[in-house]
Amino acid sequence: MSQVRINNDEVDIVIGAVQADLTPFLEDWRPFISPFHLIIVQDPDLKGEVKIPGGFNADVYSKSKIDGTVGSSAAALFSGYSCRYFGYLMSRKEYVISIDDDCTPAKDTKGHLVDAIAQHITNLQTPATPFFFNTLYDPFCKGADFVRGYPFSMREGVPCGLSCGLWLNLADYDAPTQALKPDLTNNRYVDAVLTVPVKTFMPVSGINIAFNRELLGPVLFSSFKLEKEGKIRYETMEDIWNGMCVKVIGDHLGIGMKTGLPYVWRKERGSAVESLKKEWQGVNLMEQVLPFFQSLCFSKEATTAEDCVKELAAAVKEHLGQTEPTFARAAEAMLEWLKIWNKNNSAS
Amino acid sequence: MSQVRINNDEVDIVIGAVQADLTPFLEDWRPFISPFHLIIVQDPDLKGEVKIPGGFNADVYSKSKIDGTVGSSAAALFSGYSCRYFGYLMSRKEYVISIDDDCTPAKDTKGHLVDAIAQHITNLQTPATPFFFNTLYDPFCKGADFVRGYPFSMREGVPCGLSCGLWLNLADYDAPTQALKPDLTNNRYVDAVLTVPVKTFMPVSGINIAFNRELLGPVLFSSFKLEKEGKIRYETMEDIWNGMCVKVIGDHLGIGMKTGLPYVWRKERGSAVESLKKEWQGVNLMEQVLPFFQSLCFSKEATTAEDCVKELAAAVKEHLGQTEPTFARAAEAMLEWLKIWNKNNSAS
Repeated sequence: MSQVRINNDEVDIVIGAVQADLTPFLEDWRPFISPFHLIIVQDPDLKGEVKIPGGFNADVYSKSKIDGTVGSSAAALFSGYSCRYFGYLMSRKEYVISIDDDCTPAKDTKGHLVDAIAQHITNLQTPATPFFFNTLYDPFCKGADFVRGYPFSMREGVPCGLSCGLWLNLADYDAPTQALKPDLTNNRYVDAVLTVPVKTFMPVSGINIAFNRELLGPVLFSSFKLEKEGKIRYETMEDIWNGMCVKVIGDHLGIGMKTGLPYVWRKERGSAVESLKKEWQGVNLMEQVLPFFQSLCFSKEATTAEDCVKELAAAVKEHLGQTEPTFARAAEAMLEWLKIWNKNNSAS
Repeated sequence: MSQVRINNDEVDIVIGAVQADLTPFLEDWRPFISPFHLIIVQDPDLKGEVKIPGGFNADVYSKSKIDGTVGSSAAALFSGYSCRYFGYLMSRKEYVISIDDDCTPAKDTKGHLVDAIAQHITNLQTPATPFFFNTLYDPFCKGADFVRGYPFSMREGVPCGLSCGLWLNLADYDAPTQALKPDLTNNRYVDAVLTVPVKTFMPVSGINIAFNRELLGPVLFSSFKLEKEGKIRYETMEDIWNGMCVKVIGDHLGIGMKTGLPYVWRKERGSAVESLKKEWQGVNLMEQVLPFFQSLCFSKEATTAEDCVKELAAAVKEHLGQTEPTFARAAEAMLEWLKIWNKNNSAS
């Protein structure tokens, strides 16, 4: 239905650098991201200085800057893929977009390069419709609308807080799936955006996402680290956990979440078979996590994202933390993040 | 992931004839439907004999046959678009597919004609995944799988009971939307099938659907008729209502529902502006219907589709029927349908 206007000053693009040379990555994305302010956060475990080509408006944060801002004990929260969360902390904009540094722009079915930035902002600036499913997908996309039978009282929708994009070529499969089917790539370009319905959970991937920082800033942090978490997506659950937190809090606050477009093209990194050899906690933990989130209720007093994170941390500690130290640490990390968030946001 | 094999003897294609000459419609569909048994039901209000070209394995049911089977008083249940439900009653197959007679085969993005029959059967024969959302859409489609983070314990899925296809060209908008935007057509081919999550409701359209008769046969009946229901889709709610019934019962019984592919090409019929001139109950009634279905709970004793229809009819009578005679009539019609269904199915 509607079209949006993008104000470049309202957007930060956060890149977590887990590889040292960002030149190929940034050159691929230049046509779409050069008009925006970039926040580049270097994985604290990465030695040396990250390489960035000229012509970008970028602030770069390395280990010393992270330590200086949050203290060296808290800096451990920002290792590996989690370095991006330090970028979320540094942003002062309404919209934050983050894309993994092994992705390049995808092509649509007509062969045109996809402007993932514009699509994410469109997703966030148009309402979400979590309370009833529209079979014609996002009714606020150009050329779409609400289908016959959609209640008129629900057509205004609610604010959209999170936009989850997808991946062509190497899709975001887990290590067992990719190891079993090494040739399985994703070639299907599904030309749709849709709101994930209320009370429906999904695995949010951090590879290609955007969010409204003013609505959900305090929630977008991954407190959850597997004991042997590695530097490849197969070996992490941090974004999956955070997605569950965002969804349950968004549902409570009446903030929607969209999935679908934009696609990025994802190149291979890491070996699924090697990842399988490690002892991996992810599979079993996920089985405990879902029933916990499905049964979670917030109090009426929880009216902000921050209130909800506090209640969520307490519930994680009580219901999950007793049996499994990974969860207990997650609860502590959530509260620590809130402190850092508030200190940093009040200081600015 | 998986591929299905279609057994032609397990499928009935039901066509509700609301126009007298089915020749163009059947010729358009011949390559896809000629291997199957057709059940053609003539709208009882339609005078004369419906015209059907040679070369089809078809049983045709006109008013006199409907009267002879269910009695002339019950025959009123099967007027207009509802004539298809008489075809559902006559079927003895596992899968029933029904497409409105103003639709022709659509073309996909590569310009190939879409075999809607094969796609519907694939949707029904592969599991549905209503308890967690897969961001890569139906994991049982060719070339797809479960995304990282999808709980392994949920990957078997549940049986799929209903497959809802979509429409290109004239999408299924309501009269106000189409009247406001007369040029709005649907040109977006979304190459996806997805399971509608549990407890999520959607407007099911009867234009292009398929279902598993053995799982849901007693539910697939539209008891709900607007007082001034017409012969064009704008003026009906029968399928929307029935879709809510199917979804709430499927959720209770652990039977899934898919939406998306296959598309059909829908030609114009009727004037949205003319439809708007009629007094139309649909908008207001829908606002009452959704909260009712959202709060509905079945007893543990309701373990079959038939049990659920009985409980649903009682709840409709009690909670909706007091204020609005349309609902009271719907409750009665549901029970009447059950009687007809049981009599007809036990007789055969």
